[in-house]
Amino acid sequence: MKIALAQLYYHTGNFELNISKIKNNILRARSEGADLVVFAELAVCGYPPRDFLEFNEFIELSLEAVNEIADACVGIAAIIGSPSINPHLQGKNLYNSAYFLEGGEVKNICHKALLPNYDIFDEYRYFEPGRKFETITYKGHRIALTICEDLWNVDDDPLYPISPMNMYIGQNPDVIINIAASPFSFGHPEEREAVLCKNASKYKIPVFYVNHIGAQTELLFDGGSMVVNPQGFVVDELNYFAEDFRIYELEKVISDGRMPEKDFTKLAFTHEEKMHRIHEALVMGIKYYFLKLGFEKAVIGLSGGIDSALVLVLTVRALGSENVRAILMPSEFSTSHSVDDAVQLAENLGVEYTIIPIKEVYHTYNNLLQPFFEGRPFDVTEENIQARIRGMILMALSNKLNYILLNTSNKSEIAVGYGTLYGDMCGGLSVIGDLYKTEVFQLSEFVNKEKEIIPNHTMTKPPSAELRPGQLDADSLPDYNLLDKVLFEYIEKRKGLHEILGMGYDELTVRRILKLVNLNEYKRAQTPPILRISSKAFGMGRRMPIVAKYLI
Amino acid sequence: MKIALAQLYYHTGNFELNISKIKNNILRARSEGADLVVFAELAVCGYPPRDFLEFNEFIELSLEAVNEIADACVGIAAIIGSPSINPHLQGKNLYNSAYFLEGGEVKNICHKALLPNYDIFDEYRYFEPGRKFETITYKGHRIALTICEDLWNVDDDPLYPISPMNMYIGQNPDVIINIAASPFSFGHPEEREAVLCKNASKYKIPVFYVNHIGAQTELLFDGGSMVVNPQGFVVDELNYFAEDFRIYELEKVISDGRMPEKDFTKLAFTHEEKMHRIHEALVMGIKYYFLKLGFEKAVIGLSGGIDSALVLVLTVRALGSENVRAILMPSEFSTSHSVDDAVQLAENLGVEYTIIPIKEVYHTYNNLLQPFFEGRPFDVTEENIQARIRGMILMALSNKLNYILLNTSNKSEIAVGYGTLYGDMCGGLSVIGDLYKTEVFQLSEFVNKEKEIIPNHTMTKPPSAELRPGQLDADSLPDYNLLDKVLFEYIEKRKGLHEILGMGYDELTVRRILKLVNLNEYKRAQTPPILRISSKAFGMGRRMPIVAKYLI
Repeated sequence: MKIALAQLYYHTGNFELNISKIKNNILRARSEGADLVVFAELAVCGYPPRDFLEFNEFIELSLEAVNEIADACVGIAAIIGSPSINPHLQGKNLYNSAYFLEGGEVKNICHKALLPNYDIFDEYRYFEPGRKFETITYKGHRIALTICEDLWNVDDDPLYPISPMNMYIGQNPDVIINIAASPFSFGHPEEREAVLCKNASKYKIPVFYVNHIGAQTELLFDGGSMVVNPQGFVVDELNYFAEDFRIYELEKVISDGRMPEKDFTKLAFTHEEKMHRIHEALVMGIKYYFLKLGFEKAVIGLSGGIDSALVLVLTVRALGSENVRAILMPSEFSTSHSVDDAVQLAENLGVEYTIIPIKEVYHTYNNLLQPFFEGRPFDVTEENIQARIRGMILMALSNKLNYILLNTSNKSEIAVGYGTLYGDMCGGLSVIGDLYKTEVFQLSEFVNKEKEIIPNHTMTKPPSAELRPGQLDADSLPDYNLLDKVLFEYIEKRKGLHEILGMGYDELTVRRILKLVNLNEYKRAQTPPILRISSKAFGMGRRMPIVAKYLI
Repeated sequence: MKIALAQLYYHTGNFELNISKIKNNILRARSEGADLVVFAELAVCGYPPRDFLEFNEFIELSLEAVNEIADACVGIAAIIGSPSINPHLQGKNLYNSAYFLEGGEVKNICHKALLPNYDIFDEYRYFEPGRKFETITYKGHRIALTICEDLWNVDDDPLYPISPMNMYIGQNPDVIINIAASPFSFGHPEEREAVLCKNASKYKIPVFYVNHIGAQTELLFDGGSMVVNPQGFVVDELNYFAEDFRIYELEKVISDGRMPEKDFTKLAFTHEEKMHRIHEALVMGIKYYFLKLGFEKAVIGLSGGIDSALVLVLTVRALGSENVRAILMPSEFSTSHSVDDAVQLAENLGVEYTIIPIKEVYHTYNNLLQPFFEGRPFDVTEENIQARIRGMILMALSNKLNYILLNTSNKSEIAVGYGTLYGDMCGGLSVIGDLYKTEVFQLSEFVNKEKEIIPNHTMTKPPSAELRPGQLDADSLPDYNLLDKVLFEYIEKRKGLHEILGMGYDELTVRRILKLVNLNEYKRAQTPPILRISSKAFGMGRRMPIVAKYLI
């Protein structure tokens, strides 16, 4: 039996596009001799559909799409993800289902049993867990058809009380097929591979796995669909960060005798791999954000600093230099080298740039507002005014010329609130908001590996917001090497104050950092969506109270 | 047996405050002769704690708080909500639990079995459902101890496959105690009463119910704790929108023979009741937002229109006129009556007001930006510039003088994107963002019922953003009476395009409205939190994709 894996991008709610992509791949699979073609989880409606699942018409359109796709399944079978309706009175109205289509009709439906509801996942919000586990027989093979999380319960401390494969295995399946919508984070490829290989070797049958690629706003899907033999050896992997289509002979995979060499208790990847993945992921994220919204052109405020420099590089790689406009907005506190560095970068990239000094507007504001400031001295207010003038100029150009403004904040400053709401926090999408400042430097070095794209001076000068004379980030914040380590423990690891202090950090510094993180939830509540590349990004995956008083 | 109900506000993560409030009420209950005092769901840590539940130290502090509170339970028992740790290897790490404290220690723990995960609820994100149902015997009475949603599965089309009271009832309990964190919406009091009364009459035992009051950012808790006799008659209700404490004799409630007169299949309330509730809820929401953040003073941009007028009234009622500052920022497109109306309102309320014309800044911006506008004509860009200048002035005053800026957008304009991101969409909290424009008018009439507070002219003039000469909302939007009806069907009722068209609305209008709602998800992703008074508010309870292409 020949199994085709179709690794595609889908657009949520764009049924016409999704149906057309799926049908084209069914035709291709049949013409290339496949018996079965496998698509990803919730492919017909896109992932995640979020609260569109609460609209009956959205569900009807999904079911119509499945039927239309089933019509194309003549001379070939297809597996495809779609919501389905729970016919029982009790429980939620929907299942997250895998349809087995053959002979022009729906032959079987399997429902996802393990519904992830942590981090960015909300599946239990919509779906009733499946409780029936019946293999599907096709062309003499018994298939255990599972959906994403269904295979992820293989550890000793399982998140779910049941494990679908333990229910299937008594029926002696020949193969596990898993359709997934498994979002990227830079450590995820190893975790995914380990889970799939553990399942294959535990149940001694091969695993065929299909994931999404592309981006759904902040969520990135890296693909990495794969085939694993019964020993837990990866026979083949599809492309990462790109659509792909490959056909495999099931019998060959079953009889493939190669043994895994990796130790799946150690999920190791190199620094170089990490940088490469983040780079590909962010470029893909920008590309699909514009593609799915139907926009072409981006505008970016270029300060001469490293954050906006890196965002400019990534955006040029996603959209092409002809579709990117850089705006330089020096104030009286900007150093001359900042403009020089920004100009140099724009020229290196072949990007059109415009210099719009903000001094006059800034003074007009100051003159207007001084009488109402009760004689209080220059403080963060005036710094914010400068940042907001820049935000306004960028938004005006965005409005007038139909650009999307991309945000250039990094994770460290978003964490501690070192940014101006409605100022430098503006934008439709945050490109590097899930990279700590130290990772911004690392990715910039990666970008510059072969040739100096980001000017060396941008990389080496001490970080500064340049909102008052001689200002440096280091005046207000701990050194980024220290700050980022503490932030990582608090944000990614969810360690508490005393656990972090137990690691040997200075108490005053840690208390100050954690307090800043907590106090600035109100700003993050109004941040643009952030391309997610870590295991814990700000946004939908981290839901904190705004008015809490914990550790403050 | 005398049962005290303690209806209090709690502050998430503020263990010191919560413990102190709880212990004071235990002492009071004992001194007033109660045998048992009942507090609300997750009272020790505040509700909702959200992702603080993922921090081990937060859980440890909760458990320590329970132990400290247990120490105070000598000569009296207490029931209190707190997370507890799931001791089993399988499943999530926590339960949402009700502790029964007596004799200085924890005597029993019951776990919430039904975990709401819809709308604003995320409980399945954190908690494993309880699966053990054992009554607690105390002073000769058998108590069925339940938590909020556990009683809400009484309909014929249940959301959950099991119903805790069906498991308890075989043990012949004398009384149902339910501890809750049940957020307000204007129709919720009737729903809650119906659910509690149905449970009492179905199981023929009384119900003692304790809810939170106060606000947790956008979530409002109206209290309405109550006692229901075995016939389903409400013996007593505690205050709405305020703390309260009352003691009841259980035997008296058991033998109370009164029969309910209400028809719980009809959840009716008057327009006057709706307005009164919304008014109380919003005033409470503002009050607790400032209280919990430790701020005292608010700044509001006053346009002369009805939205900002209503917000000013509500804010004055929450904080006192001495703590509110109104800023009038007329542009060259503002009509003279707008300033007059705004001044009149501020004077009616005794609020300090300041007039800061924006003409000069606006022209400075225009002169600065014109060269880059490629000769394109006046459009929404220039309108947005005006709105953003105002946002910037308000934020500058907020920064310099330590005010919180309150947002004045209404639900209709948030829905269709008729507002400027980083302009009039600025603010720490949106006060009326869950009121459709027609409801803004209704609540303003309610406010003016006894005396003209909001100037009559503000109430009667046609709505206008005054961002270009002679502009009216009606130029860009359908009439609000029509718009709000269609929005209600799409947002609250989750009806799709064809369902709404089936109600007889004009197709072009409906398509345009739905398209505007979908296209503006990106703006709502950056909106301040919105005080929730309806069954479906924008924000955490409505989670839509940003880059979807459904119905567009």
